[in-house]
Amino acid sequence: MYIESADAAYYRVPLPAPVSDATHGAMTDFELVVCRLRDDKGLEGLGYTYTVGRGGTAVHAMVRDDLAPALLGSDCSDIEAVWEAMQHRLHWVGRGGAASFAIAAVDVALWDLAARRAEQPLWRFLGGKDPRVDVYAGGIDLDLPLEELLEQARQTLDAGFRAIKMKVGRERLAEDVERIRAMRELLGEGFPLMVDANMAWELDEAIRRSQAFAEFDLVWLEEPLDPGDFEGHAELVCEDGPAIATGENLHSVEEFSRLLGFGAADYPQPDLATMGGVTAWRQVQRMAYDYKRPVTTHGVHDLHVHLLAASPNASYLEWHGFGLERFLLDGPLTIEDGQAVAPERPGHGVRLDWAKLEALGA
Amino acid sequence: MYIESADAAYYRVPLPAPVSDATHGAMTDFELVVCRLRDDKGLEGLGYTYTVGRGGTAVHAMVRDDLAPALLGSDCSDIEAVWEAMQHRLHWVGRGGAASFAIAAVDVALWDLAARRAEQPLWRFLGGKDPRVDVYAGGIDLDLPLEELLEQARQTLDAGFRAIKMKVGRERLAEDVERIRAMRELLGEGFPLMVDANMAWELDEAIRRSQAFAEFDLVWLEEPLDPGDFEGHAELVCEDGPAIATGENLHSVEEFSRLLGFGAADYPQPDLATMGGVTAWRQVQRMAYDYKRPVTTHGVHDLHVHLLAASPNASYLEWHGFGLERFLLDGPLTIEDGQAVAPERPGHGVRLDWAKLEALGA
Repeated sequence: MYIESADAAYYRVPLPAPVSDATHGAMTDFELVVCRLRDDKGLEGLGYTYTVGRGGTAVHAMVRDDLAPALLGSDCSDIEAVWEAMQHRLHWVGRGGAASFAIAAVDVALWDLAARRAEQPLWRFLGGKDPRVDVYAGGIDLDLPLEELLEQARQTLDAGFRAIKMKVGRERLAEDVERIRAMRELLGEGFPLMVDANMAWELDEAIRRSQAFAEFDLVWLEEPLDPGDFEGHAELVCEDGPAIATGENLHSVEEFSRLLGFGAADYPQPDLATMGGVTAWRQVQRMAYDYKRPVTTHGVHDLHVHLLAASPNASYLEWHGFGLERFLLDGPLTIEDGQAVAPERPGHGVRLDWAKLEALGA
Repeated sequence: MYIESADAAYYRVPLPAPVSDATHGAMTDFELVVCRLRDDKGLEGLGYTYTVGRGGTAVHAMVRDDLAPALLGSDCSDIEAVWEAMQHRLHWVGRGGAASFAIAAVDVALWDLAARRAEQPLWRFLGGKDPRVDVYAGGIDLDLPLEELLEQARQTLDAGFRAIKMKVGRERLAEDVERIRAMRELLGEGFPLMVDANMAWELDEAIRRSQAFAEFDLVWLEEPLDPGDFEGHAELVCEDGPAIATGENLHSVEEFSRLLGFGAADYPQPDLATMGGVTAWRQVQRMAYDYKRPVTTHGVHDLHVHLLAASPNASYLEWHGFGLERFLLDGPLTIEDGQAVAPERPGHGVRLDWAKLEALGA
């Protein structure tokens, strides 16, 4: 698998509508950084990562200046070895942070290319037997008035979803409780409902809210605390409230190793696009398996669907794409009977509409 | 302290001669990323960071696109608050890594500007009483034949240094021992000598070497293991060998908090240029003080000399500048009686020769 060309591109993509959460406030754009590789057979591999509006030009610079040139003319068949070499190349500015985004974009392109060469969809190339995975719709809805929150949930149900996540972290606990109660009433007993606090609290407040949420039979409470507060998350895991999910702001396998070692997550949530790609995600999946924990995902559902379909300890796939659907030539991921179905197309099966992306300007 | 202009620049700077260590191999260039701020009084603040050859264009992009624009027209008198805001701005791609380099460049410029406005050298502005700090010359010399290693040490002595660090991590333990023994014989009993392994080993080998080095009365053994292996470093701290120094590859205050919490370093070594600037360095210095540990430094001695001169728990300043001396308008830092003397010029006192830097091309 010799690489004959390696290109990087950057796009600033306006969101269809601004979204908000407890930490990031209003977000109006995301940034898309793309890596395209072409091999000695003329096949192409596509990788990408994203930011919520800042840091994208830096990630692009790393792919363009530090990673892509080193691949040219080299045999990349052993993707794990290439991944280790990329970590080593960026070690000085790495060990997490932006380097993990850049490495992800390249690593995804390599896995895509390898699966295409094998003429298999990525989920089957990785050993998966069944393309269906449980999925939930991740709402970014903290600022929506209650009626709009419920209306959004109705639309999500109409779109075929059978699990939903909503934001929490309103100023007063009573507001959070009121919104969760209204959602629970709308969705009915037993309907899988998650809540996401986006690092809103310190430990005392998180315990208070977690206990108040206990009556609503939530699947999980996500990121109640600062992502590096492993001791705090571990204490919440032991409380009577909902199970704890976290991980979207951890950017290295090492951090997940600490997270799991501290017993700080019932549901670890690696995002392959922000923590080193398919190679890194699978290391965390395997680590979670060894700790007898499920693995779930954050963002880029068109990619993660393949990984969950190939994971014995798969939990829910998060569906949330920052409106990237508009740029997918083959349309959005299929939902059937409340499950996402990984495509049969070779590789990860994502093809981007370059003309439409270029039309955005950079 | 209103900021009226904020500029970022990038330079690739060839080293006077290639250097090598156990992890990075041969290094031929470093990258310099500069931030220049101008305030409402027309005063200028200068900040900079560096890489050992990769990642610099990404750091430059972050300063240029994500940090500098947000400063324009804003009151930056409360530097700690600006620092927190920068961490928040880059949180999605941050929590260490390249973001810590970018934030460092801006933060150093802000401290320089604040001290210049106060018409004080930075060390006095930070509360220091005495500009003199103990200093050692950091040799990057793993590949030098023994005779050249000793010749380099003689030159270092002639230059006025009274403490020296050498690299270890040759393939065989016996080579390391031979080189340390020759250096100890040259330098004499009681002369402060440190050794630096640059993450060369895993724990078993590190214990073996540490024990073999015990007879040479070393000040410290530096970075024997992977920088994130806090448990391993803590075990070495408890061994009979030299004291343990580490930290140059940690890029956040949070990581230093873990390092110290694990008891993994006798000499924590934050590098302000790679872990968030003066603001971050001082948080680690204070944390080390609370743990009853000294604080030392890595790289950028023209900046660190000010911080050590203002620290009650100061250990040695590392002198190693990647040849930046060639571009300093006011010449290198003064050495007197084996101590570095922080300058009396306002701010950190570093002025760069822009014409010479521009002549390098980018």
